[in-house]
Amino acid sequence: MKKEWNVTAQQNINFSVKITDDILNPTNKLLIENGNSKRRIVFVDSKVFKTHASNIKNYFEKNNIESKILSIDISEDKKNLESLLFMLQALENFGISRRSEPIIAIGGGVLLDIVGLAANLYRRGVPYIKVPTTLLAIVDASVGVKTAINHFGRRNRLGSYYAPIVAYLDRSFLQSLEEKEFTSAMGEIIKMAVIKNKTLFEILEKNVERLIEQKFLIGDEALNIISIATNSMIEELEPNLWEKNLKRIVDFGHSFSPLLEMKSIEDSTVRSLMHGEAVAIDIVFSCCLAFHKKIIKLSDLKRVVNLCKVCKIEIYHPYFCDKMLLWHSLLDTVRHRDGNQNLPIPNKIGSAIFLNDVSLEDVENTIDVYKREVS
Amino acid sequence: MKKEWNVTAQQNINFSVKITDDILNPTNKLLIENGNSKRRIVFVDSKVFKTHASNIKNYFEKNNIESKILSIDISEDKKNLESLLFMLQALENFGISRRSEPIIAIGGGVLLDIVGLAANLYRRGVPYIKVPTTLLAIVDASVGVKTAINHFGRRNRLGSYYAPIVAYLDRSFLQSLEEKEFTSAMGEIIKMAVIKNKTLFEILEKNVERLIEQKFLIGDEALNIISIATNSMIEELEPNLWEKNLKRIVDFGHSFSPLLEMKSIEDSTVRSLMHGEAVAIDIVFSCCLAFHKKIIKLSDLKRVVNLCKVCKIEIYHPYFCDKMLLWHSLLDTVRHRDGNQNLPIPNKIGSAIFLNDVSLEDVENTIDVYKREVS
Repeated sequence: MKKEWNVTAQQNINFSVKITDDILNPTNKLLIENGNSKRRIVFVDSKVFKTHASNIKNYFEKNNIESKILSIDISEDKKNLESLLFMLQALENFGISRRSEPIIAIGGGVLLDIVGLAANLYRRGVPYIKVPTTLLAIVDASVGVKTAINHFGRRNRLGSYYAPIVAYLDRSFLQSLEEKEFTSAMGEIIKMAVIKNKTLFEILEKNVERLIEQKFLIGDEALNIISIATNSMIEELEPNLWEKNLKRIVDFGHSFSPLLEMKSIEDSTVRSLMHGEAVAIDIVFSCCLAFHKKIIKLSDLKRVVNLCKVCKIEIYHPYFCDKMLLWHSLLDTVRHRDGNQNLPIPNKIGSAIFLNDVSLEDVENTIDVYKREVS
Repeated sequence: MKKEWNVTAQQNINFSVKITDDILNPTNKLLIENGNSKRRIVFVDSKVFKTHASNIKNYFEKNNIESKILSIDISEDKKNLESLLFMLQALENFGISRRSEPIIAIGGGVLLDIVGLAANLYRRGVPYIKVPTTLLAIVDASVGVKTAINHFGRRNRLGSYYAPIVAYLDRSFLQSLEEKEFTSAMGEIIKMAVIKNKTLFEILEKNVERLIEQKFLIGDEALNIISIATNSMIEELEPNLWEKNLKRIVDFGHSFSPLLEMKSIEDSTVRSLMHGEAVAIDIVFSCCLAFHKKIIKLSDLKRVVNLCKVCKIEIYHPYFCDKMLLWHSLLDTVRHRDGNQNLPIPNKIGSAIFLNDVSLEDVENTIDVYKREVS
């Protein structure tokens, strides 16, 4: 009699990321080429919907697709269970088919993360397509397979790994963004440059001020930055899609910031941090730590600080001067990294190592460096 | 400039299913051998906790494991968002580590399904261990990777695929079960026999009455049935763990029943159906359909009906005489099977085919056969 079984299986994940133009031009069939049904449900960030409502409606009408388009008022403080349940209810009302009607998500990273989770949970998974509309989402949320909502006052505390079938990167959505959205995006782009790609760092130093002014809309240089950042992100994520390895250099900028970003949104006495901004400040702080630990040169630290300033990122925030707050943030991150600090820091521009011996005293001394360098 | 990426990755799933004895004997280290932490959080079905509370506490104490044991009052009508959130809050309060403190779930299928979903969602996944305590859960929920809660009045409408690290099958838990629990379990066991395993069917015909009286506790024959049923289930699930193929013979008994089972729980005018009972009635109805379509012999249909009766399953239910209700149930199942009926039915005992041409008239005629055969 058999009394023991070993069940093994392989799940093959396969999705595309494509830079494209004119995704909402009715002659461009990309958005509807996956799935053979003539119906689609579309979740659109209400900020995007304001500008693109008629284009979006027109796109589906011209292509004879019966569409249910929902404009979603979304932001970091609405990245919650309520928004998730609203989307799930919409899927239920739509009576979405299990395989042949991919959900279309058009919006920033927050919207994409929640739609991804809703798609994962509804009938244990229906397909979805990502159309990021912010620079941050283009280089960050569009590439990965992570879905999430905030819960228990913690950033992305509930979520899953659930791949879209495709992500379409169309920079024409950037037209209607405010400047602060570009500032925030630069956090994740600078991250990739500092830990992995010196060339990207140098391109940014040289061009980023002008490119932000032009909202990344004009010329190949802007597109090239998007391409390099996306490529770097994919290189890091693809071999570690489910984060089996918890030593991830892409966690650079995400060591102290997750808790602080959430806290800043709820705390009316301090400036609220946008995601990329929180990441940028964490980057600067981590570089200060690397300098304090004698791992990078002062000149490299100053280059990072300067690049952030050029990007108009406000890199001083009182939370990053609060020793115990930083320490508790790090402890939560350590739990997330299963008991290890695995704290990525650069040892020079374009290269990173991991620290596992950061003490409270190190944090205290780093605050001194931080105060001196950012002022 | 690179403008298109194809991201591919393979997720390797690997988990064990083990028949064991004395899982709560402190000298048996199985429950705690995975994970190097000295802490565990344990979710226990309150019905199980009533009988085994001191054993469970004693097990962890004797093994010097700091345990947080939560007794959960659970049932099909509590397989909901509220129960899920309660468990997630418990994980948050416990401050569970991301990898090294597997959640231990001790209970029936409902509990295992919700704990699995909670484990999947918390920090995008923490490990968990299944200890099924009902015969139904031993042969069904313990084997798969499906997690779920009921929502929108629909059975398992929200969920995921998330494998445990191991499932331990210990039949000593069956001691405290009521007879109706065995009746319910027989639905899933008869299912495997009818569509896949003639030998199992014959063993059941010969022994099941006595084995149910003995609560499957005594002798190798009962264990053999558990082993064969588990083995059959694994053979079907392992190559199709994520249900890429929606033609699943294990969906036998789950074509009309999912909606009706849920509805019966909310409808005070009819008898509430337990899961395995709903499955058994669907099996009988599907066999009637197979007979009406001239696919099985009347003698095979009568053998199935008789086996259900021997198992003391009440196979008449008014819902299965309601043409439109059955039809709407089937339509929802068709959505779940992405537009196809893929309705598994036996063509003889131990073998199955799929139907895709069942009409409302077929359902009507099948009701006549059903009424005649079950009375």
